[in-house]
Amino acid sequence: MTNQLDSFFGAMADPTRRAVIEQLASGPASVSELHAPHQMALPTFMRHLRVLEDTGIVRSIKKGRVRTCHIEAAPLIEAQGWLAWQREIWESRLERLDALAKSIENFDD
Amino acid sequence: MTNQLDSFFGAMADPTRRAVIEQLASGPASVSELHAPHQMALPTFMRHLRVLEDTGIVRSIKKGRVRTCHIEAAPLIEAQGWLAWQREIWESRLERLDALAKSIENFDD
Repeated sequence: MTNQLDSFFGAMADPTRRAVIEQLASGPASVSELHAPHQMALPTFMRHLRVLEDTGIVRSIKKGRVRTCHIEAAPLIEAQGWLAWQREIWESRLERLDALAKSIENFDD
Repeated sequence: MTNQLDSFFGAMADPTRRAVIEQLASGPASVSELHAPHQMALPTFMRHLRVLEDTGIVRSIKKGRVRTCHIEAAPLIEAQGWLAWQREIWESRLERLDALAKSIENFDD
């Protein structure tokens, strides 16, 4: 669990890798389709793709000469859930503080 | 924007730093309160805290001898929003595929 969040967040700390995830969210794509929008050498791009595969966010299948990649949503859902949870705790605390401030104001009236 | 997501996700790729965020989501805490649950030397812990401060997720104020930290929610909300958006695109695609599969089934009947 901890390791999965570590590697997921580490993988997302790069704009090229996030762009690949954005592209794959809309559907599977070949390596060359994924590489096309990026102004970088293919070997450099492949290193980014390998990081995504190593962390299990992207899977690929080779059919003939074409390698097709697709997203593996579980780590993304887990990480989003963790952030949503922190946000919820933080926001409910703000709401409690707000309610407290209002009750003090009313007490003054 | 890109840099903020880079540094936010990079900062979250560590269990100690995520634990600090979990603790601060519930409310401000002093450095020693944040350090207490972690079995590590204070200087090591301070390095993690500095990463969080450098990325703007945590802010601190020193009053007398006590430094109190609080969470800065904007980067967390932005990152959660980005992940939620990818998830939404991905899930709506699955729903469309599902609807398509059902319409093909009905066509067979």
